Amino acid sequence: MRLKLGMVGGGEGAFIGAVHRLAARMDDEFELVAGAFSSDRQNCLRSGALLHLQPDRCYADFNQMALAEAAREDGIDVVAIVTPNHLHAPVASAFLNAGIDVICDKPLCTSYAEALQLAQMVRHSGRQLILTHNYSAYPLVREARSRILAGELGEIRFIEVEYLQQWLAKPLELTDNKQAGWRAQPEKAGSGCIGDVGTHAWQLAEFVSGMLPEAISAELTSFIAGRKLDDDVRVQMRYANGAKGRLWASQVACGHENGLKLRVYGSEGSLEFCQENPNQLWIRPFDAPPYCITRASAFQHVENRQLARVPAGHPEGYLEGFSQIYREAARCLRDGPSAAPLLPGIETGVQGMAFIDAAQRSSRAGGEWVALISP
Amino acid sequence: MRLKLGMVGGGEGAFIGAVHRLAARMDDEFELVAGAFSSDRQNCLRSGALLHLQPDRCYADFNQMALAEAAREDGIDVVAIVTPNHLHAPVASAFLNAGIDVICDKPLCTSYAEALQLAQMVRHSGRQLILTHNYSAYPLVREARSRILAGELGEIRFIEVEYLQQWLAKPLELTDNKQAGWRAQPEKAGSGCIGDVGTHAWQLAEFVSGMLPEAISAELTSFIAGRKLDDDVRVQMRYANGAKGRLWASQVACGHENGLKLRVYGSEGSLEFCQENPNQLWIRPFDAPPYCITRASAFQHVENRQLARVPAGHPEGYLEGFSQIYREAARCLRDGPSAAPLLPGIETGVQGMAFIDAAQRSSRAGGEWVALISP
Amino acid sequence: MRLKLGMVGGGEGAFIGAVHRLAARMDDEFELVAGAFSSDRQNCLRSGALLHLQPDRCYADFNQMALAEAAREDGIDVVAIVTPNHLHAPVASAFLNAGIDVICDKPLCTSYAEALQLAQMVRHSGRQLILTHNYSAYPLVREARSRILAGELGEIRFIEVEYLQQWLAKPLELTDNKQAGWRAQPEKAGSGCIGDVGTHAWQLAEFVSGMLPEAISAELTSFIAGRKLDDDVRVQMRYANGAKGRLWASQVACGHENGLKLRVYGSEGSLEFCQENPNQLWIRPFDAPPYCITRASAFQHVENRQLARVPAGHPEGYLEGFSQIYREAARCLRDGPSAAPLLPGIETGVQGMAFIDAAQRSSRAGGEWVALISP
Amino acid sequence: MRLKLGMVGGGEGAFIGAVHRLAARMDDEFELVAGAFSSDRQNCLRSGALLHLQPDRCYADFNQMALAEAAREDGIDVVAIVTPNHLHAPVASAFLNAGIDVICDKPLCTSYAEALQLAQMVRHSGRQLILTHNYSAYPLVREARSRILAGELGEIRFIEVEYLQQWLAKPLELTDNKQAGWRAQPEKAGSGCIGDVGTHAWQLAEFVSGMLPEAISAELTSFIAGRKLDDDVRVQMRYANGAKGRLWASQVACGHENGLKLRVYGSEGSLEFCQENPNQLWIRPFDAPPYCITRASAFQHVENRQLARVPAGHPEGYLEGFSQIYREAARCLRDGPSAAPLLPGIETGVQGMAFIDAAQRSSRAGGEWVALISP
Repeated sequence: MRLKLGMVGGGEGAFIGAVHRLAARMDDEFELVAGAFSSDRQNCLRSGALLHLQPDRCYADFNQMALAEAAREDGIDVVAIVTPNHLHAPVASAFLNAGIDVICDKPLCTSYAEALQLAQMVRHSGRQLILTHNYSAYPLVREARSRILAGELGEIRFIEVEYLQQWLAKPLELTDNKQAGWRAQPEKAGSGCIGDVGTHAWQLAEFVSGMLPEAISAELTSFIAGRKLDDDVRVQMRYANGAKGRLWASQVACGHENGLKLRVYGSEGSLEFCQENPNQLWIRPFDAPPYCITRASAFQHVENRQLARVPAGHPEGYLEGFSQIYREAARCLRDGPSAAPLLPGIETGVQGMAFIDAAQRSSRAGGEWVALISP
Repeated sequence: MRLKLGMVGGGEGAFIGAVHRLAARMDDEFELVAGAFSSDRQNCLRSGALLHLQPDRCYADFNQMALAEAAREDGIDVVAIVTPNHLHAPVASAFLNAGIDVICDKPLCTSYAEALQLAQMVRHSGRQLILTHNYSAYPLVREARSRILAGELGEIRFIEVEYLQQWLAKPLELTDNKQAGWRAQPEKAGSGCIGDVGTHAWQLAEFVSGMLPEAISAELTSFIAGRKLDDDVRVQMRYANGAKGRLWASQVACGHENGLKLRVYGSEGSLEFCQENPNQLWIRPFDAPPYCITRASAFQHVENRQLARVPAGHPEGYLEGFSQIYREAARCLRDGPSAAPLLPGIETGVQGMAFIDAAQRSSRAGGEWVALISP
Repeated sequence: MRLKLGMVGGGEGAFIGAVHRLAARMDDEFELVAGAFSSDRQNCLRSGALLHLQPDRCYADFNQMALAEAAREDGIDVVAIVTPNHLHAPVASAFLNAGIDVICDKPLCTSYAEALQLAQMVRHSGRQLILTHNYSAYPLVREARSRILAGELGEIRFIEVEYLQQWLAKPLELTDNKQAGWRAQPEKAGSGCIGDVGTHAWQLAEFVSGMLPEAISAELTSFIAGRKLDDDVRVQMRYANGAKGRLWASQVACGHENGLKLRVYGSEGSLEFCQENPNQLWIRPFDAPPYCITRASAFQHVENRQLARVPAGHPEGYLEGFSQIYREAARCLRDGPSAAPLLPGIETGVQGMAFIDAAQRSSRAGGEWVALISP
Repeated sequence: MRLKLGMVGGGEGAFIGAVHRLAARMDDEFELVAGAFSSDRQNCLRSGALLHLQPDRCYADFNQMALAEAAREDGIDVVAIVTPNHLHAPVASAFLNAGIDVICDKPLCTSYAEALQLAQMVRHSGRQLILTHNYSAYPLVREARSRILAGELGEIRFIEVEYLQQWLAKPLELTDNKQAGWRAQPEKAGSGCIGDVGTHAWQLAEFVSGMLPEAISAELTSFIAGRKLDDDVRVQMRYANGAKGRLWASQVACGHENGLKLRVYGSEGSLEFCQENPNQLWIRPFDAPPYCITRASAFQHVENRQLARVPAGHPEGYLEGFSQIYREAARCLRDGPSAAPLLPGIETGVQGMAFIDAAQRSSRAGGEWVALISP
């Protein structure tokens, strides 16, 4: 039986909602049966109709949806939250309270305080919250992690991550671009570049290395006159073992589409992964020629090779990576959280908000080093 | 309403069946409701159950399936054929005869004569046959075609296409590898490398250039002792306008996973596309610096940009390209063949078999130049 | 007439001396006629003999060489200094005092105070001091500069430079490696990674952008137990126009041979240059597809195209870039400093030492932002 | 003592003469002392003066130069021939007859018959003739050869070589371009694309594989109306062991500067070398991840690593490769031909002319397979 999926957000003009639906559909583990795609009833109904939903399961109000679905015999098993950030926590709370598991887009919410409350609610509800940090589900990101944790690079010295985009290099929020619109509003987005792409970079660095820094120094800037939120983020990291890191996230870096790139250096070698070509992972040992692990090749660890849907040389991309989140979510929803231990959840979400909080504090203090709160 | 899809082939141990199912599911235009996944009834039932099918729509016999489904009120709209090659024509015939449209994997069948018969049957049936030459549906392959046909490269001089794999570099067919197994049997595969990957390369060259050669010279070889079918194919092409071409397809080219690569040169510039990174298209004008068109970027022709499911920088891959075939198939099944004029159909299939036939004749004659039969 | 060249340093076991000789020879503008290759007389004589020098012009003492050559009718026109860093200033002083022009390897010397003294001496002597920041002489680095200064990238936002090597990732200075040996000794090297490769990165950033930061924050570290000098340097830069920069230089970054890489981002586009492939410069406009300028192609500015010795497609490398310094040095020595205005000289050298000084101060203060002294 | 070098050809407006002089100078083994740079006396004198030559050693007639230099006590040790092709044999003969060794640019001469005569003359003279197939001297081409001959790729199956240029894509010979001018004249060039770049590709394939084909089939074409010589060459090769090869050389392939690229495939792996980035060699084993050997890295065979002038990561290019020919020529001139067994000589030259001859015959016969004459 497929899992019954509901969705909040993702109506006309939205971007990430369609991605979630595709990702949920890819492995045929979910069936979308209900949604509050928009608070505008007509928009919601139109969106639902396009998605083959019955009108009575298209809700203009997410609270109502939570209650109604919880009450139905054939109600949804899980809800996907794909709204602007400020609604993540309220929507998640409504469904958790109704006893329904949650799949939530990142960042978790809009403040560290809100994150802590949400974490408590998750705990109390006994339900699961899964956070779609999709980049950590690429087969070769998993491979990078396996190799680093196995000690292949030796003692880690440097972590370099950058996530560069150009789409906000001009004041796009002044046009009718819906994506740029809400992201530019502090009350809807909560944070700027740091929440939107910075947390992805942050999570990726932590995910592959297994290391969280002790302290960070950050500089958040906006390069566009009148823009209220940061569009450029530079962070330095200090790790307990003496390793150092740098994170650069930008939405105003001309020439980049979706340039998420990770490099990790150790005493015995380094590796490099570029999201824009997720079918290759470069390993550069100190004592051997640099080589390339291709996705699904025989040279990937077997547990990561199994993440592939098509053989080596048949490129996979963003949607397949995103689908892996849903594939593992299905496992967890059926068999409990231990069924997919690498799936990001509420802890990762809280950690991400702690990062944003620390970075904002550091930046306000001129780049002062601040300790990370251990969630 | 989703289209109701049936499938023949694609049971346990199969490869391309799962790809078709994924591709059909991606855009939510199809619902798989029936299948003859295997002639082994138990295998068929097990496969069907995994796919959420009702047992009474899991058939061990494709003829019976064609009749039964045609007879049902809620019978399938279209069947996907993903069997070994020798069954393509018989299965297609059964469904066409039953008035059911067909989506068929390539190559069309096992001989040129059989192709002609099948073409006649398609004509008589009034139904559609869609051939899954998936590589021609990549957004940037479409872009290459648009630019060439618009004259951007000037008069075409050279077409270079290669499709290199290493997977049969050793006698894998002697193991229990199911994929290698049937492909090594002349009675099941009909042809070797030339049918398996050669026709993809051939179709791609024709698709982007709009040009079919007048004559070809070919050399088909097997590099593995005891192998009955060709595993390496080299073809030269002569075009009416004086252009020259080369095609090299191989399954024994060590170091290549799925190396389909196309270069087209004209009097004013050239372009290059590599399937293993389908998010980039290189254009190299004679009179300007070489540049790169990325999938979904603003610099793609708008009709090709619309093929993208995710924005530039969010890589798409093999499955998204394959899905485009199904997306366009859905359009044709609803609105007739003119709804997706670039979708490969029976003519492309016959052309592919004519190519195989000519190449085999040329090769037997020591590489003699032979004219291509105009289908 | 070729210019008569002397050399101090560069005897047996040296590295950069041979590079200078090759660079001087490449365009046939110099003839090596005298040298103090080593303070060991036998080594000096052996080195000189291999270089076709007359024994009486092989000196074991550079002071004696300066006096003797100044006294000869056919004495050297210029001396190249390729010693360890601590000798740069004393040797330069000796020759400047003797009225002989100087070509000096970088960094200029071992402290900012020494640099100021040397600058005064240059001024008083009326002679020239040329500093071999060879990377700024690559034809495509010059191209990058031309395009940035012409405003092609718009207002500069980000400068990213990294210079990564792996050669000191292990304690190589404990072996008999001569290069690692002196570089690990504070009294000979003056500074570690920051002087050795950091100043190259620093100079490159300033050279192509025409911008010096107002303030920097730096962190100098040694990752090898017992190593007295920094082997890893990370610097942040703040520019007057609001631009931000980062510099990372490391000698312990496994996987890198000589990874000097520069990226500059502006409001209208970005560019990227990698020293390891100096025949390509990438330009990525905001409003057009990314493109590649190849060295010596018609698309380079004509004044930079003329720097090429061989046509496009015939790759040039490190030695050709280094030779350009000598080619321009020859022009300046013949016609005065204005004959090659892009050639780095004493000002660049002082600036480099000011950078090192500021970075060391910042690092000692835990990464505090410090202003750069305007030389 | 440096070797005394003379030069025939290479006056004003020439290209390859300057390359030879640079290459000869690079390692300081040669001193240019005499030349017949042009049959125009004034041009010759001007050229000589720029090269610091004495006027009495600037000759307007190469025969006179051969006699005069042979008669001098301090006469040249060797002559470099850098004229258009039709003069290679006469000039070489004049100097061989005068007892002077010869370094000759490729192709050896203008016909196979002439090549045989020249070979006989070399034999009778007892002097050496060195042919500057410079691409075979790249350190990583040597590495490719070492690895192939050591059996690292297993039994060779395919050899793919292409040498693509765009510079004659338009009728450049109708302008005053001197290089295009003589190359377009059958009486001066002897052959077109096949001699100019085709022989480089041919020699490279033979050099790295150690294999000469038994038979070839060729197609020589001119794509520009009015052009008398071939500007596009496509050749197929059949080897004794069953291996197959293809060679494509073109001067009208838009988008390519100097695209010489070699791929060799064996039963156990493949390798790839691209002249435009000669600091990398790709090895792709069947049973291990693909990896990259960088020039001068520890992973090169030691005898090839020693060819490097600068360390790994400090790129070398075309001139360094060319210089290696001269470096080895110096060795042979001092110690006899066995001192540099990989240096191309008269046999390679005759072989190249046999290739041109066979290809022209095959092409005239519509691509018929012709045996190669064993020189």
